[in-house]
Amino acid sequence: MSDIKPIEWKNDHLCVLDQTLLPSEEVYRDLRSVQDVIEAIQSLAVRGAPALGAVGGYGVVIAMLQNADRAKLMPAIASIREARPTAVNLSWAVSRVSKFVDEGIERVLEEARSIQTEDEQANIALSGHALNWLEKNLPSSGYRVLTHCNTGTLATTYWGTALGVIRALNDNGKIIEVYVDETRPLLQGSRLTAWELRKLGINHRVQVDSAAASAIVGGRIDFAIIGADRIANNGDTANKIGSLAVALACKHAGIPFLVAAPTSTLDVHLNSGADIEIEERSGQEVTTVGHTQVAPNGTLVFNPAFDVTPADLISGIVTEVGVFEPGIGRTFKNFLSL
Amino acid sequence: MSDIKPIEWKNDHLCVLDQTLLPSEEVYRDLRSVQDVIEAIQSLAVRGAPALGAVGGYGVVIAMLQNADRAKLMPAIASIREARPTAVNLSWAVSRVSKFVDEGIERVLEEARSIQTEDEQANIALSGHALNWLEKNLPSSGYRVLTHCNTGTLATTYWGTALGVIRALNDNGKIIEVYVDETRPLLQGSRLTAWELRKLGINHRVQVDSAAASAIVGGRIDFAIIGADRIANNGDTANKIGSLAVALACKHAGIPFLVAAPTSTLDVHLNSGADIEIEERSGQEVTTVGHTQVAPNGTLVFNPAFDVTPADLISGIVTEVGVFEPGIGRTFKNFLSL
Repeated sequence: MSDIKPIEWKNDHLCVLDQTLLPSEEVYRDLRSVQDVIEAIQSLAVRGAPALGAVGGYGVVIAMLQNADRAKLMPAIASIREARPTAVNLSWAVSRVSKFVDEGIERVLEEARSIQTEDEQANIALSGHALNWLEKNLPSSGYRVLTHCNTGTLATTYWGTALGVIRALNDNGKIIEVYVDETRPLLQGSRLTAWELRKLGINHRVQVDSAAASAIVGGRIDFAIIGADRIANNGDTANKIGSLAVALACKHAGIPFLVAAPTSTLDVHLNSGADIEIEERSGQEVTTVGHTQVAPNGTLVFNPAFDVTPADLISGIVTEVGVFEPGIGRTFKNFLSL
Repeated sequence: MSDIKPIEWKNDHLCVLDQTLLPSEEVYRDLRSVQDVIEAIQSLAVRGAPALGAVGGYGVVIAMLQNADRAKLMPAIASIREARPTAVNLSWAVSRVSKFVDEGIERVLEEARSIQTEDEQANIALSGHALNWLEKNLPSSGYRVLTHCNTGTLATTYWGTALGVIRALNDNGKIIEVYVDETRPLLQGSRLTAWELRKLGINHRVQVDSAAASAIVGGRIDFAIIGADRIANNGDTANKIGSLAVALACKHAGIPFLVAAPTSTLDVHLNSGADIEIEERSGQEVTTVGHTQVAPNGTLVFNPAFDVTPADLISGIVTEVGVFEPGIGRTFKNFLSL
């Protein structure tokens, strides 16, 4: 995967791999304006909570290049921050780099690069903690793992969160097979995760999301691991729609359900998942696949992009500083000693 | 819906609505040979457990018209019986009409017609029992109902099982809205159920299957109701893949999960769901949607067509003779006084 650079700053613009066209085509897009950045975020050309953080940081640089006028710059930065509501990383990264606007473009660019570098380091550290946790809680010579959505290089710029853990396990010869939920409506699992796993040479098979419960309860899976878009203080976790169903099946089957996310995914302002804003997206994502219409014209749709998995269904939240195991009276803030 | 006749015997052949082309096109296919019948069943041009029963019965008539030679007739009948493994109705109907082969084609045709008529009557009786059960266990002036796959006219020849219950509730002014799982991989929910509900003028919206847990746990649903392809003696129920996830979410949310199925769906030979054979279908159903490829070439797939919902997740199995509530020590056979 080292040859794939889904997000790369190039002198005066950001170059991103257009994930809407995978796996059929590998097309890179140059983002040179705030409009370009917002369109790339909203169309999901770039997606994945950590990747959105990096794009948010570089987006502020683009906004500065485009807007010499401070009165125009601030609304431009705000529009990037608000391009998508659920992933905390986007607003977090935009806020972080914006503090340096007065120090000039070079300083902001440096901060944006730091976000990307730190995210890569955090992902690798996170993988180590996941392997230790598994060694202690579910020792095995090989795992059959289920994952949902895409949390690899494409979602994070380099190593990956949940998929990074799978990659680290595979490097240790410990992956038997990965069950990949296709992840409707936009099929990030079958389009992106299967594409990454194939490039990495890791055994895998794709399934419709609703087959996950059958695979889990039927004894085909040892543990499930997913990423996160926003985590509340009690451990309630917002992630791609369908994560909750995976967690419920793991609970029923008595197997671990892990969340892999850098600590930047924690939103300290939220006490519980009830406070997380869930983005609802266009019904057309559900009623058409490619050029095929799959529901009658005019059909109404319920299309939440994310759901909230309650903390009591989560065995552990794996971060770069260790594994937070939610429980009564425990908070993520205390775990991080914030 | 009275104008839709998805399965109709016409003098010397069977005419079926090709459900693979809905909702874009309404095309009827004439089945004149055993090969036609098997192809229609395996391609899912006709599907739905009760409908497969009717087609199985008429299929034997077609086999008799095609095979004067008894030595060829029996293997032909067997090949219809085995066209799909999971729905018990197919083998049950083929066996039932086959007993009359020695009495001639007219007698077999009469028996096939009886299967269709009895199924229609059973569905309507079933709806009445469901309404009584709801009145007693979940009284309300209006329901928000979740359903999975297609269990309406298209699945049963006329009234429907789970969708028949929804239809009966709507006739009483008691449906607020129906949440329709799209039902991957073949999208019987978004393609067929949404199409039927639109024709019936019943409020509905479609969602990806993995949004069901979010809708249920988020308080948007009052109860879920599905059909069944095969029911074991303890109440374990095989139905379209994804049913188990809906049941787990209902259990977590504490709302009723109902199965609507005629008693012919019971397989008295099976003590539990562990004995139910689950059909695995081609991976291509998952990796392509219409003409759009959604996974890399050569991707392996896990594609079970059905899953098994354990009896302890089922609030009630609604049949034409009443509602069987599974529980420790209770059997469907005893409920039916078999």
